[in-house]
Amino acid sequence: MSAASGPGAADSRTGGAADQAAVQRAIAPPAPERLSLNTATVREQWNLRQMIEACARHGIRGISPWRDKLDELGAAQAARLIRQHGLTVTGLCRGGMFPAADAAGRRAAIDDNRRAIDDAATIGARCLVLVVGGIPAGSKDLPGARQMVIDGIAAVLDHARASGVPLAIEPLHPMYCADRACVNTLDQALDVCDALDPIPAGGRASGAIGVAVDAYHVWWDPKLPRALERARPERLLAYHICDWLVPTTDLLLDRGMMGDGVIDLPALRQLVEGQGYRGCHEVEILSTRWWQREPDDVLQTARERHLRCS
Amino acid sequence: MSAASGPGAADSRTGGAADQAAVQRAIAPPAPERLSLNTATVREQWNLRQMIEACARHGIRGISPWRDKLDELGAAQAARLIRQHGLTVTGLCRGGMFPAADAAGRRAAIDDNRRAIDDAATIGARCLVLVVGGIPAGSKDLPGARQMVIDGIAAVLDHARASGVPLAIEPLHPMYCADRACVNTLDQALDVCDALDPIPAGGRASGAIGVAVDAYHVWWDPKLPRALERARPERLLAYHICDWLVPTTDLLLDRGMMGDGVIDLPALRQLVEGQGYRGCHEVEILSTRWWQREPDDVLQTARERHLRCS
Repeated sequence: MSAASGPGAADSRTGGAADQAAVQRAIAPPAPERLSLNTATVREQWNLRQMIEACARHGIRGISPWRDKLDELGAAQAARLIRQHGLTVTGLCRGGMFPAADAAGRRAAIDDNRRAIDDAATIGARCLVLVVGGIPAGSKDLPGARQMVIDGIAAVLDHARASGVPLAIEPLHPMYCADRACVNTLDQALDVCDALDPIPAGGRASGAIGVAVDAYHVWWDPKLPRALERARPERLLAYHICDWLVPTTDLLLDRGMMGDGVIDLPALRQLVEGQGYRGCHEVEILSTRWWQREPDDVLQTARERHLRCS
Repeated sequence: MSAASGPGAADSRTGGAADQAAVQRAIAPPAPERLSLNTATVREQWNLRQMIEACARHGIRGISPWRDKLDELGAAQAARLIRQHGLTVTGLCRGGMFPAADAAGRRAAIDDNRRAIDDAATIGARCLVLVVGGIPAGSKDLPGARQMVIDGIAAVLDHARASGVPLAIEPLHPMYCADRACVNTLDQALDVCDALDPIPAGGRASGAIGVAVDAYHVWWDPKLPRALERARPERLLAYHICDWLVPTTDLLLDRGMMGDGVIDLPALRQLVEGQGYRGCHEVEILSTRWWQREPDDVLQTARERHLRCS
């Protein structure tokens, strides 16, 4: 993805690192104030209070907590601390996990999502990120699981609307289809949005439901540029960054820092922002390597790589 | 994917193991003579001569050698042995790996693919499977790599046609996009086929180029049923089976035996054969677990699971 060889280019036969570097220089660096910290990035080192204070210390203007960290501190107290430090809450991670083997399990998931919406409202989150869930244990019925996801989101959408919390479906990489999320492409996520919140003829999407675009999950998708056009910009609720390492040694916990992998992050940001996205760039790195690092180093590196490699 | 909840079903809210079992009973088991052995399944235990003899011993009627095994024995000698034992060669694994950092590397890949075509012709393979290759080292130019794939296949297609060897593009799971194959969905593979071997207006695809559909790589794809319709049947050159384990502990070498994972293989076979596919079901399991098993046990298990779980 680049000016010379990206979608729509007439000729993209050339390539290689030299070309790449030249093209990356041609894309303006991101605004530093757009960086946001997803708490998963330093989850093994810090609690939420430490993360909030560290963001302020490092000049990071956004934060996106996971619910385990939020629960430790309490949503009301977290909201106060976040406000005191002047941070934008770019999302709450995460709702979802709708499929279950029986009706009681599906009802419990819906109740849990209602609570997540309430917490997202309390902390003023820009969206509630939905990791929709995989195939229930003992089942091989993937279309059935996908229908449970649609039904589950449908059951909480009115509450989300009433609470002023947009729901951001995060399509997860297909390698998580079985056990974490059976929504696996941006197009598929947008199909769900369109089914539950149709775009009026000649009008625009309401923004009550949309997508969280995570570079790690979508970078490989040959349909990505068109799908981003389709999302523009009302359904683009969040943008997450990290990198795909070669080799990747663990399916879940081996994400890379921006610049250490193969994703052309500047080109992807250009595609996302080219569709009118003006939100933050949320760095979310689940990595046993980075969890062993001193967390202030992680934040400093993320700031520097955000500017130089994304 | 099932009669009750598969694509095109009116209501797929129900699910779970009970439904699943009921539906699987409704799909007739596969013809046992359709089973084929991909040599990767027992590559650590046997050489090609042992595999050929074992197929005959176990009543497995097809074989699909990898080139390392073929090279050890020599293509001419392998062809004789395979003929003597009355086996169908369902494919040769593999050509491809077209992208390279420089023109010399791309030319070398093209030359290697010409040799693979010659070997495939010698052993009477039904197709040459193409694992197309990933992003060249040092590059982040994914669209550029994808163009190199198209250019590479274009450069060998005439030789393949003249040799009577259909080229089967195998879309690989998106987790292999960076380092093994940047063609990652069936639709994307079919787009390449259509670009290089257009379907005449009102006519049918020539069959000179098509796809190898491997359950492991495509099972997650929400667009799969439509893409299979698109391929029907001239472009459907091979069908590979194994299973997706939960959890999967290695990106490359943790594939499951049919029935041990979450893929609804009977439903997938029904989709593939519903489009007119009449070829073999090639079992290809790259697994450090199965490579530690006694190879006759592996073949016996594969035969039994083919009938019962695929």
